[in-house]
Amino acid sequence: MGARGRAEGTGRMGTIGELGEFGLISRLVGRLPAGPAIALGPGDDAAVITAPDGRVTATTDLLVQGRHFRLDWSGPYEIGRKAAAQNLADVVAMGARPTALLVGLAVPPATEAAWAERLYDGLADECAETGAAIAGGDVVGAAEVVIAVTALGDLGGAPPLTRSGARPGDAVAVRGRLGHSSAGLDLFRAGADGPAELLDAHRRPRPPYTAGAEARAAGATALLDVSDGLLQDLGHIAAASGVRIEIDSAAVPVPALLGPDGLRHALTGGEDHAFAATFPAGAVPPAWTAVGRVAAGSGVVVDGRSYGPGGWDHFAS
Amino acid sequence: MGARGRAEGTGRMGTIGELGEFGLISRLVGRLPAGPAIALGPGDDAAVITAPDGRVTATTDLLVQGRHFRLDWSGPYEIGRKAAAQNLADVVAMGARPTALLVGLAVPPATEAAWAERLYDGLADECAETGAAIAGGDVVGAAEVVIAVTALGDLGGAPPLTRSGARPGDAVAVRGRLGHSSAGLDLFRAGADGPAELLDAHRRPRPPYTAGAEARAAGATALLDVSDGLLQDLGHIAAASGVRIEIDSAAVPVPALLGPDGLRHALTGGEDHAFAATFPAGAVPPAWTAVGRVAAGSGVVVDGRSYGPGGWDHFAS
Repeated sequence: MGARGRAEGTGRMGTIGELGEFGLISRLVGRLPAGPAIALGPGDDAAVITAPDGRVTATTDLLVQGRHFRLDWSGPYEIGRKAAAQNLADVVAMGARPTALLVGLAVPPATEAAWAERLYDGLADECAETGAAIAGGDVVGAAEVVIAVTALGDLGGAPPLTRSGARPGDAVAVRGRLGHSSAGLDLFRAGADGPAELLDAHRRPRPPYTAGAEARAAGATALLDVSDGLLQDLGHIAAASGVRIEIDSAAVPVPALLGPDGLRHALTGGEDHAFAATFPAGAVPPAWTAVGRVAAGSGVVVDGRSYGPGGWDHFAS
Repeated sequence: MGARGRAEGTGRMGTIGELGEFGLISRLVGRLPAGPAIALGPGDDAAVITAPDGRVTATTDLLVQGRHFRLDWSGPYEIGRKAAAQNLADVVAMGARPTALLVGLAVPPATEAAWAERLYDGLADECAETGAAIAGGDVVGAAEVVIAVTALGDLGGAPPLTRSGARPGDAVAVRGRLGHSSAGLDLFRAGADGPAELLDAHRRPRPPYTAGAEARAAGATALLDVSDGLLQDLGHIAAASGVRIEIDSAAVPVPALLGPDGLRHALTGGEDHAFAATFPAGAVPPAWTAVGRVAAGSGVVVDGRSYGPGGWDHFAS
């Protein structure tokens, strides 16, 4: 291959366009660690992943350059971490154990191949935190970067932890950081001067992946991951369960780090991929923070006031 | 919602940006037929799909506007059909039965919502031909249309039909149309005057989905779907199996419809999603066409001449 020879001759890795689709896939696949659930990995028409439960939990999210990440704010490794995390969190939010990721990457051909390699490193490292591995995927040329991640998981014989099981009298609790990504985004927008922890939180969420197993062990009645903002996402539990969710703002964890708008960030900021759940009264697990209760009725109420439409909408904002 | 009210007031459906992400998802999900394998459909953090085999076959492909389809050549229904077909064919090419699709759609917010609905109609109708259904997905705003499809399937207790089992002495056979999409593409490029069957073949492949079950019943030793061109894809079998594949060009089905370049289209044209397989000598099933044989050695040979690198590369072309 002439293009490949030229790239090697200059001592650099070359662009994705120079390597070609198959050249890049071959490079990326060579870096992927195997996972215990991958019965047949990349290289055939499809992968085969174990699903010992007899069911598979599956979710897909797209991340688009300029909308879900900015190439000037985040490096490829962090973008890979984030793309994997938001899908793995969705699997954990069903009470399932992540097993595998499939990754579709649309990328401008002029992108350096090393950029794609670092992206895959981030994807693979985030997977490893849950025991999952990358089973396969696709790479295509495009005008802008789009990352399509599908995460698969196994329920281990248990029913899925949906959004529809909350009952009046249940406690509402959260696990993981709230508002950090949103506060970090404000810093980036204002010129990126502020606590490194917040900037990092915006680049890369850190979902507490043990939350699913903890919630299940404690008898959680509903569970989800907070992707669009705590109040908006609790609204999904309220709607699916046919209940009203009452939040005490004073109980919501708002570290001083989040600044003067901390409570707003914690209640409406998305993308930290914390978890929110409802538990039978008295059953909130130790690592979780009780923030309210489930009542008869509908909607989400904060300190007695109704919370209306809002939060993050990828089109409206 | 003001934007939604305005769209309704004018009697049209409105753009995706006006509907918003959740409004569009709600519309699309409402149109989706349920499938027998969908234990929990769209609306929670993840879907749950039955995997009675204890393993799941999974594949992801991206289709990008201007590269895999053109909005002026294909309507949304055909694009949906094509996006589903190329992934369902990958599942069938493992000898598995498709169960579910997950669909990520990146789309400019100014796109009419009706366009997305027709795309989903095409995806759902193609699924229905295999017994699969759409289990979930994601919709996000983007500068260009990118469709990310993940297809899942069940092996029914049998081993996957990989690319690595071909043995010297096996017969090589094909099932389905070859070269039609490629010949149709040439017509589009030249101004779209020619047989409607070829133009339609380029817009929408028609994989013979029974091929997987037929190949398995006949004891196929290797199977794949022809996505990049017969010779290039047979090269994958040759490489994975450590064999040489010899093709007799006179045995390759080349209908007169394909025109003077028919043989080139049939041997190197991709995207028809026909199937190619190797069978023990004498075991080629009735609906398949024997086109050659497996020998000791390496590479792909046509009428005694080696076939070099070529075919379709999304970056090199």
